[in-house]
Amino acid sequence: MAVNLTAPVHLYPVKGVRLGVAEAAIKKPGRNDLLVIELAAGSKVAGVFTQNAFAAAPVQLCRTRLTGAVSIHALLVNAGNANAATGETGLHDARALTAVLAHAMGCAAEAVLPFSTGVIGQRLPVERMAAALPHALAGLHADGWQEAARAIMTTDTVPKGSSRRVLTSEGEISVTGIAKGVGMLCPDMATLLAFIGTDARLTPEAVRQCLHTATAVSFNCVTVDGDTSTNDSAVLFATGQIGTQNIGPTHPDYPSIAAAVTEVCVELAQAVVRDGEGATRFVTLKVIHALDVKEARQVAYAVAHSPLVKTALFAGDANWGRLVMAVGKAGVPGLTPGDVSLALEGVKVLERGEPHPSYREEMGTAVLAKPEYTITIDLHRGDAAATIWTCDLSYDYVKINAEYRT
Amino acid sequence: MAVNLTAPVHLYPVKGVRLGVAEAAIKKPGRNDLLVIELAAGSKVAGVFTQNAFAAAPVQLCRTRLTGAVSIHALLVNAGNANAATGETGLHDARALTAVLAHAMGCAAEAVLPFSTGVIGQRLPVERMAAALPHALAGLHADGWQEAARAIMTTDTVPKGSSRRVLTSEGEISVTGIAKGVGMLCPDMATLLAFIGTDARLTPEAVRQCLHTATAVSFNCVTVDGDTSTNDSAVLFATGQIGTQNIGPTHPDYPSIAAAVTEVCVELAQAVVRDGEGATRFVTLKVIHALDVKEARQVAYAVAHSPLVKTALFAGDANWGRLVMAVGKAGVPGLTPGDVSLALEGVKVLERGEPHPSYREEMGTAVLAKPEYTITIDLHRGDAAATIWTCDLSYDYVKINAEYRT
Repeated sequence: MAVNLTAPVHLYPVKGVRLGVAEAAIKKPGRNDLLVIELAAGSKVAGVFTQNAFAAAPVQLCRTRLTGAVSIHALLVNAGNANAATGETGLHDARALTAVLAHAMGCAAEAVLPFSTGVIGQRLPVERMAAALPHALAGLHADGWQEAARAIMTTDTVPKGSSRRVLTSEGEISVTGIAKGVGMLCPDMATLLAFIGTDARLTPEAVRQCLHTATAVSFNCVTVDGDTSTNDSAVLFATGQIGTQNIGPTHPDYPSIAAAVTEVCVELAQAVVRDGEGATRFVTLKVIHALDVKEARQVAYAVAHSPLVKTALFAGDANWGRLVMAVGKAGVPGLTPGDVSLALEGVKVLERGEPHPSYREEMGTAVLAKPEYTITIDLHRGDAAATIWTCDLSYDYVKINAEYRT
Repeated sequence: MAVNLTAPVHLYPVKGVRLGVAEAAIKKPGRNDLLVIELAAGSKVAGVFTQNAFAAAPVQLCRTRLTGAVSIHALLVNAGNANAATGETGLHDARALTAVLAHAMGCAAEAVLPFSTGVIGQRLPVERMAAALPHALAGLHADGWQEAARAIMTTDTVPKGSSRRVLTSEGEISVTGIAKGVGMLCPDMATLLAFIGTDARLTPEAVRQCLHTATAVSFNCVTVDGDTSTNDSAVLFATGQIGTQNIGPTHPDYPSIAAAVTEVCVELAQAVVRDGEGATRFVTLKVIHALDVKEARQVAYAVAHSPLVKTALFAGDANWGRLVMAVGKAGVPGLTPGDVSLALEGVKVLERGEPHPSYREEMGTAVLAKPEYTITIDLHRGDAAATIWTCDLSYDYVKINAEYRT
């Protein structure tokens, strides 16, 4: 059902990164649902996380460990259980599992970052997961990105990965990322689960800056259903295995590496929407000529979150009145109908509040029949703009989420 | 499909109010879709309207006419077309139709308030509507509330009405109201279409105060899908046909009359949610011990608008993790999981962020299997509270809105 999305064909290995998966039967048996990512010594790591007040136990531990003194050596990821809203017990479980993995890898527990995704409010099956760890460790290999992308899926229908190579002054480096997430998806400052690695020799500051820049124009610009998960996490790690010079934000190689990270993140973020729960359309929403970016995003999200807009997109119904309704309810101070123009791809529908004289219903229907298109909302108020990506609301969204735990 | 809702059995006539309907085939033929409400001379009228920036043409005219010098003599209501996002042409059409009605009734055009509901962005069929007006006028009668409630329906499945009688110092007065609306429904300061009449001799100030008090605890406390219509309007009219004393807000009879108006509005608002598009559950959401009412409402609406919560309610799935997720994403500053307790009816699920030791899945499932229940979220932060009413998100919501214009 995913919109113009297929599994990644090739993901470049990242020198200094090995990945291994295992089946722990966390929610159901019959699939790999546990992933270990091992990072070479000296790797620099940065993360961004959910702003949901009920941040899950693993998110809380990640925040602490990323600001601690111990260098990160491994990431432990599971699908099927979010370990969220589990109170002190959940923190205890996450600490215990990372300690087991740390012991097997010969590092401190604080060198392991935990990530969980799945059902909220249930305890992790700690014993089953611990028992599966040796299998994941035995399988660690540099070409494990594809199966890693599969192991972290929940209701995803397609594994999500993206990869770039960049020629730097000291040789070719790789940027490879994987992500999961299709619902409870409106990342705020962070996102879903996304893991992006590079073997470039980035400084800690460069890693942070790369990730924040990329997140702002990728994961923070997508929404499936407006629900912000308790577990959103995006992590960038740089193993520094290629080259000898440290690359900070002012190094000549930095812009091209940062651009590759951003490209990978945008492709992953778009993949998440293309595979949005029940999605049949992939829609780019552009709000232009807003007073500021905040206003532009406010309007874009009001449209993207409107159930009436989303069901019309599903039907391929050019019911542009619903777009107008959603713009009007966005709560932009002083916005009047006379400010607003609307276009579906190149088709002008509304011009400063008045129906465009050239518009005919079949022109709009032709655009909305496509699986992928752009809606442009012009506010005629200023110079700011925002672009976000979203999908429609179909029967299958309801089906998937009504039957999620059965 | 409506949840515990049947058509009103008896609606008391309101002295000084006559109602008449007609078929103008506005969207489709075969039903009455035009309503005229005639008010006796001297009636006092107040209205509250949508805060959507794209307020429809009739809403714009109502606002002007209610603050003008001419007393209101009639209301002209149509279903099937919202006359919204129609620019200057839409204003022209609404003015023309009210002028035709005014001419036939022998009053000024400014004495007629127009109301429209239905598809956005299409012109009213002015000629067909004008041609149907004589039939509506010929049929004006005091017992027309029931058929009026039917004539204003769009995707409503049940007509909505509520009625009370109140004994005052000068005799028995009636309060009767009708409403429509099942989707694009998250009124902000106003609502859907609701018309409430009384024959009490209320002063203009008392009419306004009655309506605003009632709206705050009724129409402004319901949401079906979080989408705020361009046409929301609620109007209270007092014909003053019973009694001789003017009843202002300090008159001894005022509290009991105001209470009856509030009761009627609450019943109408709840009826709208019970008949919410595709609704299979009627859910009362209580947020208690918030710092202030704004915070309480913010949390309540975050929960009520979450598609994941709504699909779980549809499924009767006690997936309380989604409730917790929605509370967490509400954006309440400083809220921590340790602040939050959660109960389904009397069943304690979460106690200050920790799963309640006595909770078992089947207890939650038993509550959510019912068509109607209360969810209580305790924030343990202060003394403020809010109650709102909402419904679930079902296949039929998607079906109704994907096929709305076909």
